[in-house]
Amino acid sequence: MSLRDDALKLHKDNQGKLNLMSKVPVTDKESLSLAYTPGVAEPCKEIHKDVNLVYDYTSKGNLVAVVSDGTAVLGLGDIGAYASIPVMEGKAVLFKEFGGVDSFPICVKTKDPDEIVNIVEMIEPVFGGINLEDMSAPRCFEIERKLKERLSIPVFHDDQHGTAIIVLAGLMNALRITEKKMEDLVIVINGSGAAGVAIAKIILNIGVKDMLMVDRTGIICKGREKGMNWAKEELAKVTNKDNKKGSLADALIGADVFMGVSEANIVTEEMVKSMNNDAIIFAMANPVPEIDPELAKKAGARVVGTGRSDYPNQINNVLAFPGVFRGTFDVRATTINEEMKLAAAKALSELISDEELTEDYIIPMPFDKRVRPAVAEAVAKAARSTGVALL
Amino acid sequence: MSLRDDALKLHKDNQGKLNLMSKVPVTDKESLSLAYTPGVAEPCKEIHKDVNLVYDYTSKGNLVAVVSDGTAVLGLGDIGAYASIPVMEGKAVLFKEFGGVDSFPICVKTKDPDEIVNIVEMIEPVFGGINLEDMSAPRCFEIERKLKERLSIPVFHDDQHGTAIIVLAGLMNALRITEKKMEDLVIVINGSGAAGVAIAKIILNIGVKDMLMVDRTGIICKGREKGMNWAKEELAKVTNKDNKKGSLADALIGADVFMGVSEANIVTEEMVKSMNNDAIIFAMANPVPEIDPELAKKAGARVVGTGRSDYPNQINNVLAFPGVFRGTFDVRATTINEEMKLAAAKALSELISDEELTEDYIIPMPFDKRVRPAVAEAVAKAARSTGVALL
Repeated sequence: MSLRDDALKLHKDNQGKLNLMSKVPVTDKESLSLAYTPGVAEPCKEIHKDVNLVYDYTSKGNLVAVVSDGTAVLGLGDIGAYASIPVMEGKAVLFKEFGGVDSFPICVKTKDPDEIVNIVEMIEPVFGGINLEDMSAPRCFEIERKLKERLSIPVFHDDQHGTAIIVLAGLMNALRITEKKMEDLVIVINGSGAAGVAIAKIILNIGVKDMLMVDRTGIICKGREKGMNWAKEELAKVTNKDNKKGSLADALIGADVFMGVSEANIVTEEMVKSMNNDAIIFAMANPVPEIDPELAKKAGARVVGTGRSDYPNQINNVLAFPGVFRGTFDVRATTINEEMKLAAAKALSELISDEELTEDYIIPMPFDKRVRPAVAEAVAKAARSTGVALL
Repeated sequence: MSLRDDALKLHKDNQGKLNLMSKVPVTDKESLSLAYTPGVAEPCKEIHKDVNLVYDYTSKGNLVAVVSDGTAVLGLGDIGAYASIPVMEGKAVLFKEFGGVDSFPICVKTKDPDEIVNIVEMIEPVFGGINLEDMSAPRCFEIERKLKERLSIPVFHDDQHGTAIIVLAGLMNALRITEKKMEDLVIVINGSGAAGVAIAKIILNIGVKDMLMVDRTGIICKGREKGMNWAKEELAKVTNKDNKKGSLADALIGADVFMGVSEANIVTEEMVKSMNNDAIIFAMANPVPEIDPELAKKAGARVVGTGRSDYPNQINNVLAFPGVFRGTFDVRATTINEEMKLAAAKALSELISDEELTEDYIIPMPFDKRVRPAVAEAVAKAARSTGVALL
């Protein structure tokens, strides 16, 4: 059978992937009277007296809402809430398997940012954290910002920050190989959706000074009129310090790093050849990368990563979000701040020792058992040191 | 330790009661590529082509939202969304243990009926059914009606219909003992919240002709001004055919049946003595019944039921809602109609054979393994015969 057939069969045979179980036995009159009436009234009364006890007596402290409106699902685009469910159930499965975090899909039948914010705010009581997923840019930035303002629990848009964490970890280790310095790099990011913008922000944050953002229209620059939005206007202010204009090919001339979160096969061998020595290529378009990794290598790239599991250096979000929420929940952090994201990236990069590090092994593998505790501990520590941890 | 201590310890030691598991393995690269990217794109694409396939490829067809605003939680009243969570998690646990139905608590931080309706409508995609819980009357009637209008999945307010089903089952069997006929009964219902109203409706529906509803103000009658609302105005039109006025004591004179969903100890021995021969008493106030069952018996009642597990004839909702949703989901019914509720009541009553039936055993026990299949099959059959089953 093909992957397609296998995937459809798996989903159909199991009628989805979620299984809601009880943590406590309900097998006789006595256990029923504790888990439900009359005993259940006791934790209710305690929480009514002190709402903070909701973390003691309910699942809230380990429960994430995976929220999507289905507007930017995988590489499939705006397929809507119903068609997004398999991905969100899958995300919930990964949260549990890789992070020990309970989570539940909330797929909303509206695309209005304010309505989505309001719904999430109103159903927040049972959840200890919000993971936004597969929402189109720039709407996702507004939704995330407003939710952070309104809620006192962590809000994390994985397509942005999860991706940014892994990319930064990969970049840190690629620099260990190429022996270049962060502040000397010229970085080109192709794609200005959720992931591209978040990668740009985290990388600017750690001291990269020369970065070009490119979208379908070309290099994003001040004064450009076509294909702009408020998020790109903001990027134009903080990137592209020489205000270059032109195409992706123009942007790549002399660049040290290409990061693609865009489209299949839009980078040519010639473009790679035009880059600086020891070029680093993260071609993360799925399922087909911006350039075939072997072609990129042939054209002179030193380190190449993709989003695929069948090539070396897979940029896979599952390396970050489970451990990030694990660490966040372990210390009951009220937010997931920049320091916590940087700590996660650093922890991921440091998992690979100098002896282990090669051009084809700059990022841990998804099933590496060291990943979850390393990320969780680093995130928890950063939460404590920045004063956002309640435990 | 006390029940209180045990219940608090159970909830705290487990950090709530919900455990979100995966139905499918995610243990290696291959299984990950089926449950998540890239394989997960296949069911997404199928659902995008035909939204009905959401029942094939996701958990929707077996997943209930347990929705509450925390306005009428157990006997605790309006304790709010956060304090209601232990009950809603408990309900989810019972759905799974007693019905094999997955469910998840949605505790909303608003009391506005239209806002609640809108939120539930918007998060409907992942759910195959809605179970409303612990919402105050008459708001709950409006919320239920509007949701039924807007959604094409079943909507069920358990405090209404679950209770009504068990009460009707108990009444059917009490009549087998007292050899009275439904159409000859004079029934007094004390309490005009969600449960009282629903009990009145189901009982009128099966042919009872003489019924009095009583609330804190007294007998509900046409023209009464104090303590009325639109739901009680409607009841005044269809009950109390002689338009009696007065107190609960007045209402009970000559009555055959008392059904209380109200307050502790408000029925006296004298009131029971004033009732007709072979009186039937369902004193369902929790945790303390309207009259102590032994006192009621001493005063001449023939059959007595309560809401408690330590007396005979416990009116326990867990006998109905798990099997009702099991049967509804088994045939993918689009609604839970009156015929399905009646079928559930009948199935419950018929579980007790003439040989088994006694004054102290008119209702099956919660852990009776025959209950779930009997209720589920009866409900599924009624759904099919009324044309609301899609399978």
